[in-house]
Amino acid sequence: MRNLDEMTITQAVLAKNSGIGDARLCEIMTSLVQNLHAFAREIKLTETEWQRGIDFLAQAGAANTADRQQFALISHVLGLSTLVLAQNDRKPVGCTETAAFHVTPEQAPVLLDAGADFGADSNTAKGYLQGAVLDVQGHAIPHAVLEVHRACPHDNGAIDRALLPVDEGGRYHLCTALPDNQHIPHDSPAGQLLAALNRPHWRPAHFKFTVGATGYQRLTTHVFRAGDPYLDADPLFGVRSSLITEWQWHSGGMTPAGTVSNDPFYTLAFDFVLAKE
Amino acid sequence: MRNLDEMTITQAVLAKNSGIGDARLCEIMTSLVQNLHAFAREIKLTETEWQRGIDFLAQAGAANTADRQQFALISHVLGLSTLVLAQNDRKPVGCTETAAFHVTPEQAPVLLDAGADFGADSNTAKGYLQGAVLDVQGHAIPHAVLEVHRACPHDNGAIDRALLPVDEGGRYHLCTALPDNQHIPHDSPAGQLLAALNRPHWRPAHFKFTVGATGYQRLTTHVFRAGDPYLDADPLFGVRSSLITEWQWHSGGMTPAGTVSNDPFYTLAFDFVLAKE
Repeated sequence: MRNLDEMTITQAVLAKNSGIGDARLCEIMTSLVQNLHAFAREIKLTETEWQRGIDFLAQAGAANTADRQQFALISHVLGLSTLVLAQNDRKPVGCTETAAFHVTPEQAPVLLDAGADFGADSNTAKGYLQGAVLDVQGHAIPHAVLEVHRACPHDNGAIDRALLPVDEGGRYHLCTALPDNQHIPHDSPAGQLLAALNRPHWRPAHFKFTVGATGYQRLTTHVFRAGDPYLDADPLFGVRSSLITEWQWHSGGMTPAGTVSNDPFYTLAFDFVLAKE
Repeated sequence: MRNLDEMTITQAVLAKNSGIGDARLCEIMTSLVQNLHAFAREIKLTETEWQRGIDFLAQAGAANTADRQQFALISHVLGLSTLVLAQNDRKPVGCTETAAFHVTPEQAPVLLDAGADFGADSNTAKGYLQGAVLDVQGHAIPHAVLEVHRACPHDNGAIDRALLPVDEGGRYHLCTALPDNQHIPHDSPAGQLLAALNRPHWRPAHFKFTVGATGYQRLTTHVFRAGDPYLDADPLFGVRSSLITEWQWHSGGMTPAGTVSNDPFYTLAFDFVLAKE
């Protein structure tokens, strides 16, 4: 195994990797090596370009945090995430579509009191979201675990995240500030990649929900808003028609929470339909 | 651009990337996206496996330092580095072969005094290396910049690195401890990858040299030693026959430096032959 060149290196690596005990890992590594080498050969990657790539990965590594996962973001920007989600999202018709990866938080999110105001710090209008966690036959799934994220503008790490109570009838209520458009910062590696690709940095506004219940597939999804200017330009390729919702505008008056509002507010009904495991 | 699935996502990403101004970057990103997606499709990468990959990159990023470049090491382990070096190493016959990437040090290495002892801290035998920096016609290249690394055992970051004086006749001398076998640590991400692949962690002992001179291609290469037990098992695929050298053993006596040694020592003559730019 000496004097390996561009004609012999791929087979040499595969031969070395043939001792992998785990058959699935062997399959993954074989395909990874073949496609990685195909890439380098196809474009005749130079030493300088290789170094640029290595430096970019190092920068992404240095900027990576639990809240701002640069490698996941880069995967989204390259469309890999959408591909992986799509090819694994085999659910009966009528189930809510998956739109994101579940990320286990570093700290468990707090359980919001029923009716509590989520994201009260925001400048956006108030919204009242309610609905149920259902199976595909429309039956309530009681005691589901429902987690909500509200992405903040400028993606500054101040993402609101909480658990919502789900009652015996599978019902939930959320009083919240509406999400705003989200910006992938230019000074992050993922943002720099987007800039190098001459692509926009703004995401459509969305809530992210993760819904889990015993006996059902965990669902991680987004809820978008009709009329958002970025629905057809999402740099992370995550928008699905079934997840675009029409919020109802109200000039003021009695809210779904039973309070009286002098300011305009919005309401939305949205059910989460889970597939059996 | 909504509802992208495994059949449509690749074209959608390529369409988004078609606005890249730099033609070469567009070529690179097109091939990268196509091959990355081909990999994910071929093995039907799952969400769990995707997360495992993202976590591995994050671990590599956290462990990455200027001295222990994890992403470069991972590229070596996957054979990508050997492929990139080979497909760009187009030099006239007779030139010294390239065997590694040049890494710009964070701090400029010190210039060793002529005849100074390099790597005196090591337990390995003393070696006297001498030779010249030549062009392919065998003419001396004066004033070349010659940098030496001696990889330490256990890859503990204590890598010796220095500039060697090169005289008007292109000649250099190096008095040094011989390099020892190098171990890629099990607790580093690159070492963990090797372990997962069920591959050995020991590299053949080598010096790394970088040689530069105005008007010539910069050369970065390794000098290996005949008889090393790891020559055919280099986990980084870097060994070339032309770079395996026969050190001469001496029981003691007068050294090339003009000193008298009671201990055995080794000598080697090795010339660096550079290609014109």
